[in-house]
Amino acid sequence: MTHDRNASFPGNAEAKGVIPTLDGKKEVASLEKGSTVLGTKVLSGVSLPAAIIRDEALTHNLAWMQAFAERHGAELAPHGKTTMTPVLFERQLAQGAWGITLATAVQCQAAAAHGVTRLLMANQLVGEANMAIVASLIADGVDFYCVVDSAENVAQLDGFFAARGLTLQVLIEFGVPGGRCGCRSAEEVLALAEVIHEAPALALAGLEGYEGVVEAVDPAQGVRRYADTLVEVARTLHEQGRFTVAAPLVTASGSAWYDVIAESFHAAKLTGRLTPVLRPGCYVVHDHGLYREAQAAVLARRGDLTSALEPALEVLAQVQSLPEPGLAIVALGKRDIGYDHLPFPLRRYREGGTANQILSTEGWTLTKLMDQHAFVQLPRDTQDVAIGDIIAFSVSHPCLTFDKWRQLLLVDEALDVKACLSTCF
Amino acid sequence: MTHDRNASFPGNAEAKGVIPTLDGKKEVASLEKGSTVLGTKVLSGVSLPAAIIRDEALTHNLAWMQAFAERHGAELAPHGKTTMTPVLFERQLAQGAWGITLATAVQCQAAAAHGVTRLLMANQLVGEANMAIVASLIADGVDFYCVVDSAENVAQLDGFFAARGLTLQVLIEFGVPGGRCGCRSAEEVLALAEVIHEAPALALAGLEGYEGVVEAVDPAQGVRRYADTLVEVARTLHEQGRFTVAAPLVTASGSAWYDVIAESFHAAKLTGRLTPVLRPGCYVVHDHGLYREAQAAVLARRGDLTSALEPALEVLAQVQSLPEPGLAIVALGKRDIGYDHLPFPLRRYREGGTANQILSTEGWTLTKLMDQHAFVQLPRDTQDVAIGDIIAFSVSHPCLTFDKWRQLLLVDEALDVKACLSTCF
Repeated sequence: MTHDRNASFPGNAEAKGVIPTLDGKKEVASLEKGSTVLGTKVLSGVSLPAAIIRDEALTHNLAWMQAFAERHGAELAPHGKTTMTPVLFERQLAQGAWGITLATAVQCQAAAAHGVTRLLMANQLVGEANMAIVASLIADGVDFYCVVDSAENVAQLDGFFAARGLTLQVLIEFGVPGGRCGCRSAEEVLALAEVIHEAPALALAGLEGYEGVVEAVDPAQGVRRYADTLVEVARTLHEQGRFTVAAPLVTASGSAWYDVIAESFHAAKLTGRLTPVLRPGCYVVHDHGLYREAQAAVLARRGDLTSALEPALEVLAQVQSLPEPGLAIVALGKRDIGYDHLPFPLRRYREGGTANQILSTEGWTLTKLMDQHAFVQLPRDTQDVAIGDIIAFSVSHPCLTFDKWRQLLLVDEALDVKACLSTCF
Repeated sequence: MTHDRNASFPGNAEAKGVIPTLDGKKEVASLEKGSTVLGTKVLSGVSLPAAIIRDEALTHNLAWMQAFAERHGAELAPHGKTTMTPVLFERQLAQGAWGITLATAVQCQAAAAHGVTRLLMANQLVGEANMAIVASLIADGVDFYCVVDSAENVAQLDGFFAARGLTLQVLIEFGVPGGRCGCRSAEEVLALAEVIHEAPALALAGLEGYEGVVEAVDPAQGVRRYADTLVEVARTLHEQGRFTVAAPLVTASGSAWYDVIAESFHAAKLTGRLTPVLRPGCYVVHDHGLYREAQAAVLARRGDLTSALEPALEVLAQVQSLPEPGLAIVALGKRDIGYDHLPFPLRRYREGGTANQILSTEGWTLTKLMDQHAFVQLPRDTQDVAIGDIIAFSVSHPCLTFDKWRQLLLVDEALDVKACLSTCF
């Protein structure tokens, strides 16, 4: 076994995210350790494909969503599963976020290791090895919350944490019939609260829901009704004295319906009794597909919003072959970019050019994505295309693009690299 | 910027692949450095979801494919993009592989950093940053080959490598009309060979093809005809004295048609003049979907094969919620497993049980996969199911499962961990 060779070759242990210079290896190694690489030019000095984040759009999005939450009297706990990028967690917290939402115990462990001290695991905590991770976080002082939706899981958690003399803060998950996890009715929630009340190692800290699985003829109305019910059930729990923490949470929202959830929470005037928490994740880099569509719907619902989120994430890749008229094969594949929606060419540059020297991609369509290759159809008479041309591709959605990279490049408007952002998937 | 915190928290810097013990963090840290974790039990001591590789099946597959290639007088250069797992490269080379095939310059850099000294990049080398990586490998003594299919790329490569006083070994890619990269005809190949002949920094080292994009009414016949043509064109190049290396290569084959390619190469009696090289990748862990089907076709074509490849890769995950009769939500998502074919439950275990205590999954179907959740339909009257039950899921295909993990667990038949295998995507 020599897989611990990693230790000896930090600069070359990972195949992605390296920024070699033309001089060779040494700088690669130092760059991978996280040093800032101010000025490296994506259009000439970076091994492509690479995922880039436009800092201007990112900065805008960070401020925009924080302000949105604050205007609605809600706390923001951005879903960190989207990026698993500690530098972005840090910027979200610096912007005023209440904490970071995550999906698994190991994601929480990674975030805590990078300094995040309040974690909302919007998911059931299952398995003793995962419980052990969380026990370790709580013992280290992390303000940790997870969700429960069954008496069986309550018993498992109570047994595990009681044996270690620790208290676990839990939120009951309120789901919908035909949905994903979660109690299916208010009655089930209230009955589970009673079970939790009898579990000495558990502290009931709030009520959690996810509106993304609500189905209704009028989706916005369905989501609003769901949010209203969530608030109502949380109030009932409060009146019954079921919460055993100071500021119990009521929380919902992904990146598509956050406006409706925020309005419902706001209208309920919860301040002082319940803490409303929004959990969008993808907003941080937004996208060019699924969430652009969702945002159009938000703007249609909310005439008062004058600015909106901006897509910040792109993947850049190069034309590697022009084997037939009308066909370019690009060095970009399923290994590099999410493909729930097929990416499309946004812009084209000549290698070594500058960010404002944009070449046309009119009529260019990505038609097929293999593991390491993309098929791009061009107008058959396209003349101005060269092997090595750099195409910026749209991304949708962000979660399944971030997880393909160990490092993403934060760039300025000139496409110069401002920093390498490490992910911790 | 604090993304260099990675350096201070090696044990917690990554969210996946950690093997915590119930005692907490310290051991996690040491395990992540690559120490062997003999005896850790997947069914009780490992944070799930986790990707496992069954060593017995892996060992069988490694030997099987090497023997297959040797019986056909061919060298084996397994496509390493599938796994990007240096320990597996090492086992493939120890088994007798001629070298490792890869798809990108950074993949080659990662493999070389882990000791691989012969690399076949079955792809065009594009972009000065990628050329710089390869220049550095060649300067370090790596026996490197890549493919070309255009005079434009030849000129770019010749310019770059000539300026550095290095020679780049290239193979002409022979494609098919309507296919991916590659020259579309023998005439184009011969013309490109002439261009390469005039490029002092390039050495023409062989002819490369990929039969996976051949389309024909009778696919096996189409692939055979393609392989025969590949050999014929390589012979013509040889006769014309176009090859400038001692043992020029003729190479093709993914994991679906390797038998047909091998037969064609074998029948051509190339020994001594050309070096036939096969490049299957997925065979190393095989799968339960796409490649199981492909293998059934291989066995149907080849009555002489008495044993076959065995699926070695599975992803294990736990039931986290049983919210309605007939529905289990499992902590497994698109973040954890390939989904070109939806995974299906293979086996079920109780947490803390042993590998031979298998519970039924009869009538269980994974119907939907979200980023971090799987919907599994069960018979509505299922009684014997618990929160925390561990389900082993099928994988297809392997490439898009490996790239979701920074470490995979090599396990024995008892599902005890034999080693943590790091990937270098």
